[in-house]
Amino acid sequence: MTATDWIHTPTAKIDRASIDAARERQAQLTKPPGSLGRLEEIAIAFAGWQATPVPRIDRVLVRVFAADHGIVAEGVSAFPQAVTVEMIRNFTRGGAAISVLSREAGADFRVINLGTAAPLGDADRANPLLRDVALAPGCANSCREPALSEDLLARALAAGAEEITEAAPSPQLFLAGEMGIGNSSSAAALASALLDEPATVTVGPGTGVAGPDLDRKRAAVARAVALHQSHCTTPFEALRRLGGLEIAALSGAYLAAAQRGVPSLVDGYICSVAALAACRINAGVRDWLLFAHRSVEPGHRHVLDALQAEPLLDLGMRLGEGSGAATALPLLRLACALHAGMATFAEAGVSTGA
Amino acid sequence: MTATDWIHTPTAKIDRASIDAARERQAQLTKPPGSLGRLEEIAIAFAGWQATPVPRIDRVLVRVFAADHGIVAEGVSAFPQAVTVEMIRNFTRGGAAISVLSREAGADFRVINLGTAAPLGDADRANPLLRDVALAPGCANSCREPALSEDLLARALAAGAEEITEAAPSPQLFLAGEMGIGNSSSAAALASALLDEPATVTVGPGTGVAGPDLDRKRAAVARAVALHQSHCTTPFEALRRLGGLEIAALSGAYLAAAQRGVPSLVDGYICSVAALAACRINAGVRDWLLFAHRSVEPGHRHVLDALQAEPLLDLGMRLGEGSGAATALPLLRLACALHAGMATFAEAGVSTGA
Repeated sequence: MTATDWIHTPTAKIDRASIDAARERQAQLTKPPGSLGRLEEIAIAFAGWQATPVPRIDRVLVRVFAADHGIVAEGVSAFPQAVTVEMIRNFTRGGAAISVLSREAGADFRVINLGTAAPLGDADRANPLLRDVALAPGCANSCREPALSEDLLARALAAGAEEITEAAPSPQLFLAGEMGIGNSSSAAALASALLDEPATVTVGPGTGVAGPDLDRKRAAVARAVALHQSHCTTPFEALRRLGGLEIAALSGAYLAAAQRGVPSLVDGYICSVAALAACRINAGVRDWLLFAHRSVEPGHRHVLDALQAEPLLDLGMRLGEGSGAATALPLLRLACALHAGMATFAEAGVSTGA
Repeated sequence: MTATDWIHTPTAKIDRASIDAARERQAQLTKPPGSLGRLEEIAIAFAGWQATPVPRIDRVLVRVFAADHGIVAEGVSAFPQAVTVEMIRNFTRGGAAISVLSREAGADFRVINLGTAAPLGDADRANPLLRDVALAPGCANSCREPALSEDLLARALAAGAEEITEAAPSPQLFLAGEMGIGNSSSAAALASALLDEPATVTVGPGTGVAGPDLDRKRAAVARAVALHQSHCTTPFEALRRLGGLEIAALSGAYLAAAQRGVPSLVDGYICSVAALAACRINAGVRDWLLFAHRSVEPGHRHVLDALQAEPLLDLGMRLGEGSGAATALPLLRLACALHAGMATFAEAGVSTGA
């Protein structure tokens, strides 16, 4: 068994009997059938995931995977590369959007540094909210060479998976985010390879590039794709050549979550591309994914379409970090609260429809 | 001063300085500008409503207005009229969707019975979560006569307003719901009059009528509109002739909330029609409304368009009771939590974009 054979291990089974029982319960609750729309579907899906007719979402695991990207040398980002390290610090000190949202959710929150160009300070590495894996000073520039070696890819996938396998007790929901200056370029290149779509489709403003800067970003992604496309005969190889350390960790986490029977609430563009790679590696992953929101990033739509995913929210968000997923989390909890807490027609003595 | 002169009293002023200060703060938070999308707009709007650069949403008032409708005699509903009373009981005993959602929100919850065809029982009337106004045994059948007399309309508007004016301390958000078998027909007739659109546009399945039943509902609404349209020269008169007790109470509550400086989170079709009537009566109300969700009910789109409203959620919901608004409430709270809790670039020592 090689270091990455685990990614093909079958995903957990969904409990169809609990799905049927939950659907039956929904039909008896005091409301016109179907009138809670997607909230009903969510509760029913969690019943299948948790193998119980009345699921709960108490234990939520939030993990932000961070790393730098060699492709920033091509001038693809509106922010300097130093921001990756600065934002890792901001995550662990509680000032970032996902920090605030995780606190509000009462979630188990941690940041995993997969490797930045500038080193983290000692104080940052000692922060209990940080796991400092630091596999390399960022991935390589995919415009010139593969972003990751086979060894680095294996270690990044494993680092993501460990966040799932080591969580005890098992979380009821996994919610991932990412940070890495340049990572919307790597995600776009990977999406181009996986979807066979040109950079004009997969590249967008990211943190906010526009005009000639956006043209430069598109051109860089197109060069990376052109260099590696013929070698990307497997999703694994596409992830290795065009992804990044934190993108691979995300894919590893989604794979491990589905194998352990933990549903994942997928954030925006970069997380969705990582989820797409995970699904292409192991098709069973798709059954364990919910999609939180539709990002403004234009390539997201194509990735969602490929995954046959209809996100819950469309609020014009494009921050990343897992912020869209954490914003959608209360909807999932309310869906389960309604499913568990509403009276049935019989319990409430309410007449049913004609 | 007549019993309804108060509805024309100017609405409260929005504090532009706090809006500017909140917008300035958003620009300094550690994220690409605008990347939290509508969550940023929400926080900024609440700043203006609360006249503070850093708003909070702790005190939420949830009120469900219930009443019966004479138009059910035309066979417009999938449920028997007894369900109105049965659901009032379910609300106060905690088994309805809005009961569960209000508990989850920690909101101040109450049901106001404006008048049902069957009387409430003594035990129901003694429930502290019920305010038993009971102005009449439902409104009249608008296919035959005006739904409300001038006196009943005045009293229903006032009953709605009292829920706002008597709330102490003043709530930071008002969230209304409705219940009343037949009320989607009354709302459709009122929407037809206010929007000058035919019943084919404003009538939908409501709780679930279809086929010939839906045709009968459309025909009944069309008859009601035809009977009263030429008399509906003011929004007040349209509300009186085609609305209903709980719809008028909703309009009164939205009017009073805007006058007191309390923003309202508007639920689905019926609440939106009541809000439209309130805005037509007093244009200043619009500045104090947020729209929670896009109902499956087809007429909702037209009412939202007339109000230039873009709801936050689109989850295929069509229950009413305020359930869509209560589902959107966590988004507003997260918007304010992010606005208050995120670090600025300066505080976090994060570099800004180029």
